[in-house]
Amino acid sequence: MSSETLSQVLDHIDATIQGATAHLIELLRIPSISTDPAHKNDCDRAATWLVEDLKSIGFEVSKRPTPGHPMVVAHAGSTGPHVIFYGHYDVQPVDPIDLWNHPPFDPAIEDGTKGAIIRARGSSDDKGQLMTFIEACRAWKTVHGTLPGKISLFFEGEEESGSPSLVQFMTDNAKELTADIALICDTGLFDYETPAIITRLRGNLAEEMMITGPSKDLHSGMYGGVAMNPARVLSKIIAALHDSDGRITIPNFYDGVPELSPEIAAQWDALGFKVDSFLGEVGLSELAGEQGYTALEMIWSRPTCEVNGMWSGYTGDGFKTVLPSQASAKVSFRLVGKQDPYKIRESFRNMVEGLLPRDCSVEFTGHGASSGSEMATSNPIFEAARTALSDEWAEAAAFAGCGGSIPIAGHFKSILGMDAMLIGFSRDDDALHSPNEKYDLRSFHKGIRSWARILHQINIS
Amino acid sequence: MSSETLSQVLDHIDATIQGATAHLIELLRIPSISTDPAHKNDCDRAATWLVEDLKSIGFEVSKRPTPGHPMVVAHAGSTGPHVIFYGHYDVQPVDPIDLWNHPPFDPAIEDGTKGAIIRARGSSDDKGQLMTFIEACRAWKTVHGTLPGKISLFFEGEEESGSPSLVQFMTDNAKELTADIALICDTGLFDYETPAIITRLRGNLAEEMMITGPSKDLHSGMYGGVAMNPARVLSKIIAALHDSDGRITIPNFYDGVPELSPEIAAQWDALGFKVDSFLGEVGLSELAGEQGYTALEMIWSRPTCEVNGMWSGYTGDGFKTVLPSQASAKVSFRLVGKQDPYKIRESFRNMVEGLLPRDCSVEFTGHGASSGSEMATSNPIFEAARTALSDEWAEAAAFAGCGGSIPIAGHFKSILGMDAMLIGFSRDDDALHSPNEKYDLRSFHKGIRSWARILHQINIS
Repeated sequence: MSSETLSQVLDHIDATIQGATAHLIELLRIPSISTDPAHKNDCDRAATWLVEDLKSIGFEVSKRPTPGHPMVVAHAGSTGPHVIFYGHYDVQPVDPIDLWNHPPFDPAIEDGTKGAIIRARGSSDDKGQLMTFIEACRAWKTVHGTLPGKISLFFEGEEESGSPSLVQFMTDNAKELTADIALICDTGLFDYETPAIITRLRGNLAEEMMITGPSKDLHSGMYGGVAMNPARVLSKIIAALHDSDGRITIPNFYDGVPELSPEIAAQWDALGFKVDSFLGEVGLSELAGEQGYTALEMIWSRPTCEVNGMWSGYTGDGFKTVLPSQASAKVSFRLVGKQDPYKIRESFRNMVEGLLPRDCSVEFTGHGASSGSEMATSNPIFEAARTALSDEWAEAAAFAGCGGSIPIAGHFKSILGMDAMLIGFSRDDDALHSPNEKYDLRSFHKGIRSWARILHQINIS
Repeated sequence: MSSETLSQVLDHIDATIQGATAHLIELLRIPSISTDPAHKNDCDRAATWLVEDLKSIGFEVSKRPTPGHPMVVAHAGSTGPHVIFYGHYDVQPVDPIDLWNHPPFDPAIEDGTKGAIIRARGSSDDKGQLMTFIEACRAWKTVHGTLPGKISLFFEGEEESGSPSLVQFMTDNAKELTADIALICDTGLFDYETPAIITRLRGNLAEEMMITGPSKDLHSGMYGGVAMNPARVLSKIIAALHDSDGRITIPNFYDGVPELSPEIAAQWDALGFKVDSFLGEVGLSELAGEQGYTALEMIWSRPTCEVNGMWSGYTGDGFKTVLPSQASAKVSFRLVGKQDPYKIRESFRNMVEGLLPRDCSVEFTGHGASSGSEMATSNPIFEAARTALSDEWAEAAAFAGCGGSIPIAGHFKSILGMDAMLIGFSRDDDALHSPNEKYDLRSFHKGIRSWARILHQINIS
């Protein structure tokens, strides 16, 4: 493979971008809302559309039934590094529909703040993104009659409804889905000019606690100042979860949290992350996290403990002088390194129980527990991808972290023993999960070119 | 007036208790729910019923219009100490109606745990109670052809809907409503055998606060551990309102809180209040208030600060990893002695603002502010009433406090410069404001007798 091989493909991509956009529009017209039973057939139609499209590019492809919506699995090529590309064809619901400027399944090309955009539900999450990879494959096949290396595709139709069939499917089809690396296109650019390869994800642990004091709501005139108030107890517990430096006080919480290597810290510093505008966009001015860490370290490499919701007593209009019987909170943790979610759950629950006065009891409900993950960037495919992306974009690609938790990456690791490389082209203002979702046509076009470059680079490295 | 004068009346009350009950049932049949506009006419009917009934006893009586439901004001007699009796003829709504064992406005005589009861909305709050006074007057008038002393009556029809017309009416009719003492029958017995004269009421101050951090709800993966979380800020503030001894930490909060005199402390100790069963009935086992005080002191003579409600972020089923933009709480205070509600409001708000991090703001909404009140029990009418009640009941009457706030007592003091004596016969299990409200016929019968004795004692003292 020569650089000529690649530049022919890139030229073809540029010349046929209109056709590629038309393909995407076809897929966006299918309202494949996975969580809504009324759209079950639409999910199936989207899977079928992908099957037919991939067949036309020369993939050996099948629609695979699950208890929910079907998976699509495709394979092509037999030599070279084996990559498996993951994306999802299902989309979020569109409510509230009246906030959309345009019908969500009637894709429209509009002028955005930075060039043309395509407006539709799923344009960015994730149909537009998964089509960048398919279009790169189509272009390569058209120009060279074959694909660069050994490529598998794996499309899910239940990502937006909690992926209930995913783990079982990956377990049942482990051999077929195992490759040298997983490529996941469901993330964003670092900034407008800088692509990102996500190499670390935080895990997630969520706990709901309900504290009960008196057996019923009491009159605060009669019992106020005498009876235990669970709203006050809950507040004390939440207040006790952090010290004055923003560190989490749960015993042994930081076990397994690695210190960042000076190399990576330096890389992140070099990214020139604009803390002021990051915070300013949401009305804030100062970092509220653990003292002694930069913003990117707080988001990408440090664990957190946050209250996502809490409630107690009377919350309607006006006043009821009730002394509540119960108080509840939803607390979630982002985990990194080798932090063990199950040990932390236990330690958290023990700490809460230790803070309860004798007259209060607590009931916990666990909601998911996953570890953080860090990819082995020593795998040369990471370096190949970084080179390829840096060639396409104005700025060099960043090895970045992600504050969120992307379960599929963890599944590739835990079920199939593979690293995953998360590369995506969405932008912060794409309105994922919100009304008026959009995808920049620039993201789509340069995304296709990026994958062509990455596939080329992987195969020549 | 001789003791014979009284015993004739008491005998008559005993002989005619069936008829008195029939009167009460007539009034209870009128669904005078003041808060529901559909029952406006019923409120008027209840007022008219009272007017006609009082006329028949020889009162000069009128129904007085207000912007809401009418007041009923009546006068009789011209010599002796002047008492004005207050009660309210309106009742609470009856929802949830399906929890009633019997239609709420079709009064039924049933067997209760301690003798016969009358089951109906308003039986205890407040129609049954106000009728104890009217029946005492009726019996006296029937037996002696006149009433004992100078008696005024003042009935409101908006007590259960916040008394919107009360202050203006009292102000406009100050001269007419001013007497030597106000008698208010809207409280309970101390226990089954012990009547109570409420001589002190706590004031009330209610504050709602809404803390805003980020300008919108954020994703906790992206912003957790970086952005200020107002739910955590609110929890810290609530946790800071009390110290480890249960004392309230708001600066100058205790200004004007009197220490209890050893005499009153001894009186209260002598009441033999059963803390274990008081707490045990609501599933608690230990006093959670200010250390160093007895339960009755905590309820009757110490100020409190309680959370009545709080909420933030996602409170539905399952989990949303949202970092909330706002967190709110409803906090209320019970005040005693010379505590100034307006100064405390200011000090509370200053304290909260001082605890806010730079990126948070707070908005307060005040909901009412009233001082505590303590009656001048040196007024000989208090001693007369105590003697009378002690004669009627098995145990001596208690000068008691009340943890709640009864605004009408404060209005008599602040608008008319009068003390109020709160004497009532309801029991803890009367289910005021709840389905299946009831009033013990024993309370009704001994209540009537009690008022006859009190009126007698006042006029011979």
